[in-house]
Amino acid sequence: MRMVDLIRKKQEGLPLTREEIRFFTEGYVGNEIPDYQAAALLMAIWFKGMDRDETAELTFAIRDSGEKLDFSEIKGIRADKHSTGGVGDKTSLIVTPMVASCGIKVAKISGRGLGHTGGTVDKLESIPGFRTDIPKDEFTDIVNRIGIAIVGQNREVAPADKKLYALRDVTSTIDSIPLIVSSIMGKKLAADDDAIVLDVKTGSGSFMKTKEESRKLAELLVDTGKKAGKKIMALITDMDRPLGEYVGNALEVREAIETLKGNGPEDLNEICEVLSGATLMLSGDASTLEEGRRMAAKTIRDGSALRKFREMIKAQGGNPEVTEDYSLFGEAPVIRAIPAKASGFISAMDTEAIGKASLLLGAGRSTMADVIDETAGIRILKKTGDYAEKGEPAAVFYTSDERRLLDAEAVYDNALTYSAERPAPRPLILDRVE
Amino acid sequence: MRMVDLIRKKQEGLPLTREEIRFFTEGYVGNEIPDYQAAALLMAIWFKGMDRDETAELTFAIRDSGEKLDFSEIKGIRADKHSTGGVGDKTSLIVTPMVASCGIKVAKISGRGLGHTGGTVDKLESIPGFRTDIPKDEFTDIVNRIGIAIVGQNREVAPADKKLYALRDVTSTIDSIPLIVSSIMGKKLAADDDAIVLDVKTGSGSFMKTKEESRKLAELLVDTGKKAGKKIMALITDMDRPLGEYVGNALEVREAIETLKGNGPEDLNEICEVLSGATLMLSGDASTLEEGRRMAAKTIRDGSALRKFREMIKAQGGNPEVTEDYSLFGEAPVIRAIPAKASGFISAMDTEAIGKASLLLGAGRSTMADVIDETAGIRILKKTGDYAEKGEPAAVFYTSDERRLLDAEAVYDNALTYSAERPAPRPLILDRVE
Repeated sequence: MRMVDLIRKKQEGLPLTREEIRFFTEGYVGNEIPDYQAAALLMAIWFKGMDRDETAELTFAIRDSGEKLDFSEIKGIRADKHSTGGVGDKTSLIVTPMVASCGIKVAKISGRGLGHTGGTVDKLESIPGFRTDIPKDEFTDIVNRIGIAIVGQNREVAPADKKLYALRDVTSTIDSIPLIVSSIMGKKLAADDDAIVLDVKTGSGSFMKTKEESRKLAELLVDTGKKAGKKIMALITDMDRPLGEYVGNALEVREAIETLKGNGPEDLNEICEVLSGATLMLSGDASTLEEGRRMAAKTIRDGSALRKFREMIKAQGGNPEVTEDYSLFGEAPVIRAIPAKASGFISAMDTEAIGKASLLLGAGRSTMADVIDETAGIRILKKTGDYAEKGEPAAVFYTSDERRLLDAEAVYDNALTYSAERPAPRPLILDRVE
Repeated sequence: MRMVDLIRKKQEGLPLTREEIRFFTEGYVGNEIPDYQAAALLMAIWFKGMDRDETAELTFAIRDSGEKLDFSEIKGIRADKHSTGGVGDKTSLIVTPMVASCGIKVAKISGRGLGHTGGTVDKLESIPGFRTDIPKDEFTDIVNRIGIAIVGQNREVAPADKKLYALRDVTSTIDSIPLIVSSIMGKKLAADDDAIVLDVKTGSGSFMKTKEESRKLAELLVDTGKKAGKKIMALITDMDRPLGEYVGNALEVREAIETLKGNGPEDLNEICEVLSGATLMLSGDASTLEEGRRMAAKTIRDGSALRKFREMIKAQGGNPEVTEDYSLFGEAPVIRAIPAKASGFISAMDTEAIGKASLLLGAGRSTMADVIDETAGIRILKKTGDYAEKGEPAAVFYTSDERRLLDAEAVYDNALTYSAERPAPRPLILDRVE
């Protein structure tokens, strides 16, 4: 088998076989296939796509490229949720204690990643004492005991994805649906879950700018998960504006706690109920999504989700009192209100740009070497549909460095569109694929 | 400027600017742009193409990437011919003395290359004593004195092409018309000729399998040459069967000598007359192609082309007596007649496969490290349109190693299609672009 022949096959739009896909991924991870041939194949895939079988085979090859997690010692139904990523998306912090308090086992391995804020693991580390580098035995033990633990990746899970993603990043081949699917699911399937709920974001703050693209992505994700024998469904949810009010690390954990207390913003609360409901349906605890959603809502009302969150903090070495005393998170040295630049209804938000502003304030990483400023971020006061009077605060910026404010404000201002008319409301949950 | 943005632009089918193309070629030759980003861009070009201006800019960037030849000390009109390459194509050996004997200056820098035989330089080196590594001053002197010299590339002409071609070879991006044009013309324009005649091959033995593709290639080659201020034209000629009877190195030189003596096969003679005629027209020595062709034919009849060829051999240190005594070339130790496998008219020849058979006999190189067997090759006895009786010789193989015969014969046999009907004759010169 010659790599150049595989490239040619894909250039001609022909599907690659399982053997050919394994030849490529194994050769690439093993440094036998050079970057330039991998780049050529990725670009051919960018143009010609991959069918469902090819996508699944690439996913499985990525999954099998490193260590697979063995959760067999965890008793009960194991479930996970995964989001394709968006600004203000702290749902993992809320949904996981909600479903864990219903008896589902959450053994979550989460990434750090680049972007406008850190990943779930970075956010949790803003809780004083919280450890995310927990040895496997202890991790298993915590999940069996209290039903939930969230830790970082300390093993080489799906190294093929790491190498391919880095190459895609510099060859302009990130935005290929089969490549996105194989990257997400290759890692996800290396974990040993029974059920997976996917939150596929659509709109200005996500990769998929249209509902049609998002649906295509969701369908291929679900199909690949099913081919791996998983119970899986995807919800397509709005990311044309940030989710909730806060963007940042400690700020998002605080908002998650408020939501677990029943005081969350409407959009965040709704999406967490639905994602939790979907998880309960997949696990067999609920017979419909609606029933699952009602069960999930109850965990907020009766305080059981918040209690579960506190149990997890304690089990992982953190101080559970953060849920009652937010001063334990510390506070950003610079807090500045950002005035609305015009009067009118906010008719659109460039959500990606808002993420950029958060990054500029120090809340995220541009490269993996960057250190996250845990207290930095944004509180969004005026969202799409809200009316703002020129000069009244549209947002609040949190940062450690006053010099960061100016650039972030310029980006933020550009992200908002004002209009005399109130924009038509847009649904939060746009579609589901199962 | 970021390479990843250039790649994206091409993915979207947008034309790259002069500055962007220079950024890429200079960065790539200077090892600032890595192979994998170059590979991604080449693949995007493979899919999306380049317009005429982009192709010219890439060509000029390649031309300017290394040393340019300065022929200013050569007096008179300097002309060159270039063929896109085909099996049995020894026209350079014949056309250059033909036009030189009419007073045109031929200062030809020729490559070695991979394939079914060596390049023109390799072929000439089968003449005992013939030197192709001649210092520039001596080269200029020979051309001024006798009007013709053919030498190898000893300087770094168009290093960008060398690097890009090697990358295209392993990333399946050879067959892109703008990339082919920039490679051919980037090198050609680094030489300091006034007039260029291009022989664009079409058919089973060339890159361009159809006349339409060949015409597209020819048009882009001519357009690029004109943009560089050259007098240029292209002829599209048949390569659906080998040219002449012989494939090999010494064998092709012998056939070239026979053609210069007026005993050449009809197809080879015709194409050499036309290519020479075109050169004479471009140089202004003839007012039409037909007039140029008549002038060229006269150089064969009156022996002046053969004399010029002998003068060149002598000037470059070779023994001119080879034109009278072919035994000076040496002879292959193994000479074997290959019988026709069926009775019937040869209705088609897979010319590429015939080239492959020649390579297998030792006449060509698979990698630049391979050593050419100068006496190896093929004499083709039955060509498209000829009738063969099963068992009578269809070809003669020449090799140094008996063990090579079997594979070569299998490939050769597969290359021939027999039919009960005589195939319709196909013209040799299919089109011209000027």
